[in-house]
Amino acid sequence: MRYIVIMAGGSGKRLWPLSRQGMPKQLLRLLDGQSLLRLAYERVAGMVPDEQILVCTGADYVEVVREELPELPEGNLLGEPEGRDSLNAVTWPAAVLTARDPEAVVAMLGSDHLMHPVDRFRAAVEHAFEVAEQVPDALVTFGVVPTSPHTGLGYLHRGEPISGHPDVFSLVDFREKPDRATAETYLASGDYWWNAGMFVWRTRTLLDQLERLLPDAYALITELTERPDRLDELFPQLPKISVDYAIMEPVAAGRASAHVLAVALPITWHDVGGFVALGEQLPTDAEGNASQGVTVLVDSRDNVVINTAADGRLVAVVGLTDTVIVQTSDITLVCPVSETERIKELLDQVTGQLGSRYA
Amino acid sequence: MRYIVIMAGGSGKRLWPLSRQGMPKQLLRLLDGQSLLRLAYERVAGMVPDEQILVCTGADYVEVVREELPELPEGNLLGEPEGRDSLNAVTWPAAVLTARDPEAVVAMLGSDHLMHPVDRFRAAVEHAFEVAEQVPDALVTFGVVPTSPHTGLGYLHRGEPISGHPDVFSLVDFREKPDRATAETYLASGDYWWNAGMFVWRTRTLLDQLERLLPDAYALITELTERPDRLDELFPQLPKISVDYAIMEPVAAGRASAHVLAVALPITWHDVGGFVALGEQLPTDAEGNASQGVTVLVDSRDNVVINTAADGRLVAVVGLTDTVIVQTSDITLVCPVSETERIKELLDQVTGQLGSRYA
Repeated sequence: MRYIVIMAGGSGKRLWPLSRQGMPKQLLRLLDGQSLLRLAYERVAGMVPDEQILVCTGADYVEVVREELPELPEGNLLGEPEGRDSLNAVTWPAAVLTARDPEAVVAMLGSDHLMHPVDRFRAAVEHAFEVAEQVPDALVTFGVVPTSPHTGLGYLHRGEPISGHPDVFSLVDFREKPDRATAETYLASGDYWWNAGMFVWRTRTLLDQLERLLPDAYALITELTERPDRLDELFPQLPKISVDYAIMEPVAAGRASAHVLAVALPITWHDVGGFVALGEQLPTDAEGNASQGVTVLVDSRDNVVINTAADGRLVAVVGLTDTVIVQTSDITLVCPVSETERIKELLDQVTGQLGSRYA
Repeated sequence: MRYIVIMAGGSGKRLWPLSRQGMPKQLLRLLDGQSLLRLAYERVAGMVPDEQILVCTGADYVEVVREELPELPEGNLLGEPEGRDSLNAVTWPAAVLTARDPEAVVAMLGSDHLMHPVDRFRAAVEHAFEVAEQVPDALVTFGVVPTSPHTGLGYLHRGEPISGHPDVFSLVDFREKPDRATAETYLASGDYWWNAGMFVWRTRTLLDQLERLLPDAYALITELTERPDRLDELFPQLPKISVDYAIMEPVAAGRASAHVLAVALPITWHDVGGFVALGEQLPTDAEGNASQGVTVLVDSRDNVVINTAADGRLVAVVGLTDTVIVQTSDITLVCPVSETERIKELLDQVTGQLGSRYA
């Protein structure tokens, strides 16, 4: 049977102070009051019954996920006791599903991005399901057709179409985040796609690769599904490694029994991981200011001003350029646009100086 | 008898949102929890009995002034129904005092500035009292000995010492705010002082000049003191004009019966009318940031960050330079240091868009 797992791990520290310890990025109602998680659910709703949709998130977030997605059964919310990279975020759900359904085929989908148009996204996931069902031992990965020489993403170097499937490509290899010049050659060649970090596979196929490549991790994952009461004890023993390093690259290099295939995800794909990217998704005024909440901007341009304080508190700005201002109920952040990658560093300093109250 | 009037008019819009409609600049406890008004009172306390110290302020502020200066008798707080420039801020108290004491000599002192050292300030006021008592028909003005070619102040062009008083100078004329080159020639010549806008005179002498130069205003001021119940009706009819234009300059030019004298105020004189000037009075860190309240600044320099929100709300900043951030219970202002003169304009926009709630 088909299943969908929405991956909603990660804390989203680049969106602090909107994101907080108990309120990760995917749960924030950033856009028209909708959370990224809700959008991710609605993108796939109806493709499989709700009983076959799961969410993998941090244990601390299970309660808020439940409130955000009341459609899903209780047992479909998997809470990781701690973040241990993407290998476990895909293999643990695979083991859970295999125990339910040895023939499970699962789409592992992200919730970090905005993806449009939704119908093309659904068609691509449908296509990938068919490939995973029809081609034995396939690990299907999605490549977003690139629209710019992005240097912040990994790339898939795709090979030839496979026999009988003109829309399904073998994979030459995975490429790390490139420099600008390399990214431009990738874009020009047409043979490289952005690595979406989303997959479709038979859960049994994935677990077989894990067993071959990391037998200790496989034993732990198996034990986890048999002894869910020992989750908090066993989970922290799992190796902290990405699924690309641990599985996809070795498999693509022929070091296991499966093979990696790539299908196109012909959508626009917007990260909203930081305030600049988020600002691009908000309405802007004629001076290029993106703002939300009670704000007044005079002779200011290209700012991102997000005011979520609920009690009518005002953010007022004059003569300001290229600055991010975020005001929540208890924190105000001010940071030049060019410095937004340092918000994590700021958060660390805040926590170091003032404790976890503001984390 | 001697009297002292502390002038505490003006709303201090350049310090918005610290200053508000009901809380003008002079009442803000900006520095070590002390207000400028309290400092102004303490500068002169004991020079005359408290019964002879008055405050002239806006009618809206009389209550907060009373709380700030409980030493002063109720009747010594003069509340102007509306701000009508400095002529009325000096002639109305003069009329009130003349009605109490026809021989009143009054020092009209400001509360906008920090002045150090206090003992020199007191000595200069004492000296000016003596001059006003000894020299018939004198309007004594104070000149701050300049320490820089300030272009934001008017200047006094002093003439020769008067006979028998080597420390008292006649006045050639008043000079408007000069351009930089002119200010430098003023500074080099030694013949120009900053116009402190503070005065000592017999109240009767001042009113005589008013009667000659603006007989209608004189009639109104006289009526005001006789009919305090009609204050709200009569006060708005007074001409809106500065005392320099209406009295001091015509008198200096010989167009009335008195004469203007100048004495030195050999003090350091800090305006705290705006956030940059205020920042100069606050403790700074090694990177030149002046901050107050719950703040964390990472790799930021030359900012002024004032956080008066009482509930532990944090202002957190990374990679920011030359910016003013002011957070109060209901407003957050962000403005480059170079744009702080536009805060009034911002306040007008805020009021235009959102009404008086934030004014």
